[in-house]
Amino acid sequence: MAKGTVSISVIRRLPRYHRFLKDLLVSGTERISSGDLAARMGLTASQIRQDLNCFGGFGQQGYGYNVKALYEEIGHILGLDKHHKAILLGAGNLGRAIAMHMDFDSRGFDLLGIFDHNSQLVGREVRGVAIRSSAELEDFCCENHPDIAILCIPKEAAKRIAPMLIQHGIRGFWNFSHYDLSLEYDGIAVENVHLGDSLSTLCFRINELEQDS
Amino acid sequence: MAKGTVSISVIRRLPRYHRFLKDLLVSGTERISSGDLAARMGLTASQIRQDLNCFGGFGQQGYGYNVKALYEEIGHILGLDKHHKAILLGAGNLGRAIAMHMDFDSRGFDLLGIFDHNSQLVGREVRGVAIRSSAELEDFCCENHPDIAILCIPKEAAKRIAPMLIQHGIRGFWNFSHYDLSLEYDGIAVENVHLGDSLSTLCFRINELEQDS
Repeated sequence: MAKGTVSISVIRRLPRYHRFLKDLLVSGTERISSGDLAARMGLTASQIRQDLNCFGGFGQQGYGYNVKALYEEIGHILGLDKHHKAILLGAGNLGRAIAMHMDFDSRGFDLLGIFDHNSQLVGREVRGVAIRSSAELEDFCCENHPDIAILCIPKEAAKRIAPMLIQHGIRGFWNFSHYDLSLEYDGIAVENVHLGDSLSTLCFRINELEQDS
Repeated sequence: MAKGTVSISVIRRLPRYHRFLKDLLVSGTERISSGDLAARMGLTASQIRQDLNCFGGFGQQGYGYNVKALYEEIGHILGLDKHHKAILLGAGNLGRAIAMHMDFDSRGFDLLGIFDHNSQLVGREVRGVAIRSSAELEDFCCENHPDIAILCIPKEAAKRIAPMLIQHGIRGFWNFSHYDLSLEYDGIAVENVHLGDSLSTLCFRINELEQDS
């Protein structure tokens, strides 16, 4: 497995392979050809073979892919079998929805704590995790050593709090704020979810459709 | 403006330009060089000039970009000044958070209705919009002609409901479900937000960091 040489666009496709393979696994499919998998995923068979060859290739000529083995291997490549300790900052609507909605466990994430500066929210629980005051955040990091922070806070708050989090060992950010962390810090992993950008892109595409029709 | 020839990767960068330009506008900046904008955005000046040239180019040699004009023009290219009627399906945690959190108005989206099959939710309001029963959805589409659906429902529900929505004139989907709409329908605009895929990608990146260090 030569991860360092694999392009980010291949990496970004892996979770989708993982998802489709899980569906196959749940439906009891034991093996699948690259052609069948391609048809389900809207890709070409050669694209699939190319992607999976980046990691050494898993298929056997004339047999196809063993669904369970490939599912587990992709999970392993993604690191879903590792253990990570996460904290979530911002227990507003979005933060609470993320805490409720996401299947953290299946990705090896342990959600240790949720933080908000709004005293009305402090003490409430979301999915069994207590919302704590932001004032406790630094002590909590010292004691519990989380390595991932989920940022559901405004841009300015994210900017203010990032140095402290990085200093206390946070290496990964799932960033819903509009603060561009990766512009200011090296050696951290940032995955941005800019919902507004996504909605604007939809806007563009619909208008494009209307102009074509 | 020759939209048809512009690559999707350029389109995907436009909302980010729009965001940075808005910040500049709010801070009172009237003009900016491609070099300064590049430094703020973590891009190169030539990348910026190349991107904006796709739409005819807006800068003047030695003057830079007029922030307000460029902001408005990108908004226009994205179609944020058009009017769209949206419905949101699924008033669970994620759906309610999307309804509460997103600034639909500034993108020309009018959120007409929210639908859920859970009778406990029906009748409640989210940001002034009543949650209606899914049983009313088809009649509502006939009467109100929404053109965009936001799917915060499970994969199977999305698959079941999509044909009816498309039949009633829905042309754009902001899709938080794991149903791959674009594999089955042509002539629609789909923007997927697969939060689970994003979290898995973060997982990969953190593990990659750990292996490098």
